[in-house]
Amino acid sequence: MTYAIIGTGAIGGYYGALLARSGQPVHFLLHSDYEYVRTHGLQIDSCDGSFHLDHVNAYNDTAAMPPVDVALVCLKSINNHLLPALLRPFAQQPVPPLVVLIQNGIGLEADLEQQLPGIPLAAGLAFICSAKSAPGRINHQCYGHINFGNYSCHDSSIMDRLVDDFTNAGVKAGLVDYAEARWEKAVWNMPFNGMTVALNTQTNMLLQQPDTRRLIREQMMEVITTAQHLGVNNINEDFAELMLSMTDEMTPYSPSMKLDYDYHRPMEIHYLYSRPLQIARQIGHPMPRLEMLEAELRFLEQQCQH
Amino acid sequence: MTYAIIGTGAIGGYYGALLARSGQPVHFLLHSDYEYVRTHGLQIDSCDGSFHLDHVNAYNDTAAMPPVDVALVCLKSINNHLLPALLRPFAQQPVPPLVVLIQNGIGLEADLEQQLPGIPLAAGLAFICSAKSAPGRINHQCYGHINFGNYSCHDSSIMDRLVDDFTNAGVKAGLVDYAEARWEKAVWNMPFNGMTVALNTQTNMLLQQPDTRRLIREQMMEVITTAQHLGVNNINEDFAELMLSMTDEMTPYSPSMKLDYDYHRPMEIHYLYSRPLQIARQIGHPMPRLEMLEAELRFLEQQCQH
Repeated sequence: MTYAIIGTGAIGGYYGALLARSGQPVHFLLHSDYEYVRTHGLQIDSCDGSFHLDHVNAYNDTAAMPPVDVALVCLKSINNHLLPALLRPFAQQPVPPLVVLIQNGIGLEADLEQQLPGIPLAAGLAFICSAKSAPGRINHQCYGHINFGNYSCHDSSIMDRLVDDFTNAGVKAGLVDYAEARWEKAVWNMPFNGMTVALNTQTNMLLQQPDTRRLIREQMMEVITTAQHLGVNNINEDFAELMLSMTDEMTPYSPSMKLDYDYHRPMEIHYLYSRPLQIARQIGHPMPRLEMLEAELRFLEQQCQH
Repeated sequence: MTYAIIGTGAIGGYYGALLARSGQPVHFLLHSDYEYVRTHGLQIDSCDGSFHLDHVNAYNDTAAMPPVDVALVCLKSINNHLLPALLRPFAQQPVPPLVVLIQNGIGLEADLEQQLPGIPLAAGLAFICSAKSAPGRINHQCYGHINFGNYSCHDSSIMDRLVDDFTNAGVKAGLVDYAEARWEKAVWNMPFNGMTVALNTQTNMLLQQPDTRRLIREQMMEVITTAQHLGVNNINEDFAELMLSMTDEMTPYSPSMKLDYDYHRPMEIHYLYSRPLQIARQIGHPMPRLEMLEAELRFLEQQCQH
């Protein structure tokens, strides 16, 4: 299939370069690195083997991009207000592409569906440590597997081909239930992203201290019981224990929101906190600890701007 | 009446010096400032008029103190494990004195009652800005009124005489319902003490930001509804509004726990958070936001020690 990469950063640059290397036609939307990458290509420094993509189909405007089968949205979700305009040219294709949101959070697909009705949507859940280290240069540190969850694509064969293309590109990929996958990821993301910012620490310190370990577990249970109220029944208390012991095994880790905060970049508070909290309130199952964390993050973000 | 001041610091030094100036026999327990105060007396720098107490009945051991009618406990509550030993000589008087705990928190009198059964207890709720500025020197910045709540004193005339003595000493003093007064103070103390530490800020900033203002109000309502569950029915939603608007009117303020944290002194987490949270859980009415705040404070305190 042909691909558009909407946002050629740590995630989009990595997966797009792998797909291109494996022979798929890939078209990259760039912003600040457009001139550099058009001239010099993309360098992927990877734990799985580094490589350079000499020729990159680079664009700085989606209106100039050709029709594609799949658009991978790899922007930070703080930029999602730009998506309707960015995706409009693709939405006007005779057969619009599958749009895959490789982003963290809850409610992303529902919001985009409102803005671009009828466009087929899927979620991409990436488990990857990757960062942009310089213009046109991605540093892929570890992991990299990705799961896809079909949100509104009626042609399920496209989902299968998506998994095949990623697999052929050397990425461990699979199909998962959309709601289950998004909420499972939120079980880890909602406690750890915010708490490492609020307490200026890393995952391991939060788990070593009994009080914060208990708090993290309670926050996980707020997410799990909300998901259960929404009919996502395959996530239960065991999943919280699994996430805790999995995180115990990880090296001390700063989640993406902690890095954003430390580097004075905007934090993804809206889709990581505000939207799921809104959904939880709507079904009459508020999450008080995560609401408190949201308030603390909004306060810290505002302080940071002064 | 005769008085013992257990802890001659910002609070005990101030009230004790006023009582002594007005002619009451006052005996001061001192620790680090014992030699200095015995020689040089006590200096009170006060917004209401400064004065010097030349002769101070100073002690560094309660066993050496004479019998008294009233013992005012003005220690930080982190030292309350010392109280049974400190108060033992008074408890062995033929008629034990009224012990007044001029301290912040919930559960202080119940714990001491277990340790020294039969000793008459009362709470002192001080509304005062005061600090020790040097050995034997207290800086009283503003306010100063105090309310007393009878916990277990069967002779109510002693409570009346206590109010009279403070009034004669120039302190605005009154009698209040014990449980109501302790929980009313907790409505302000529990949100503001911890949140100024957790977010490294002052009261005014927390109230200016809509997210944290809402959070502070929710935390106040956790305390208010817990008090209501305990049968303290005179505190309701209006009291939260009153505390918010009162705090709006204050100058930017760092509560005592924020000062303790900033100066690397131990924080009064136990009686300001852990005990009331334990009581709330025992009656089946947990306070999730304040439990989260307790966990954050315990984490920060441990980090601070490294």
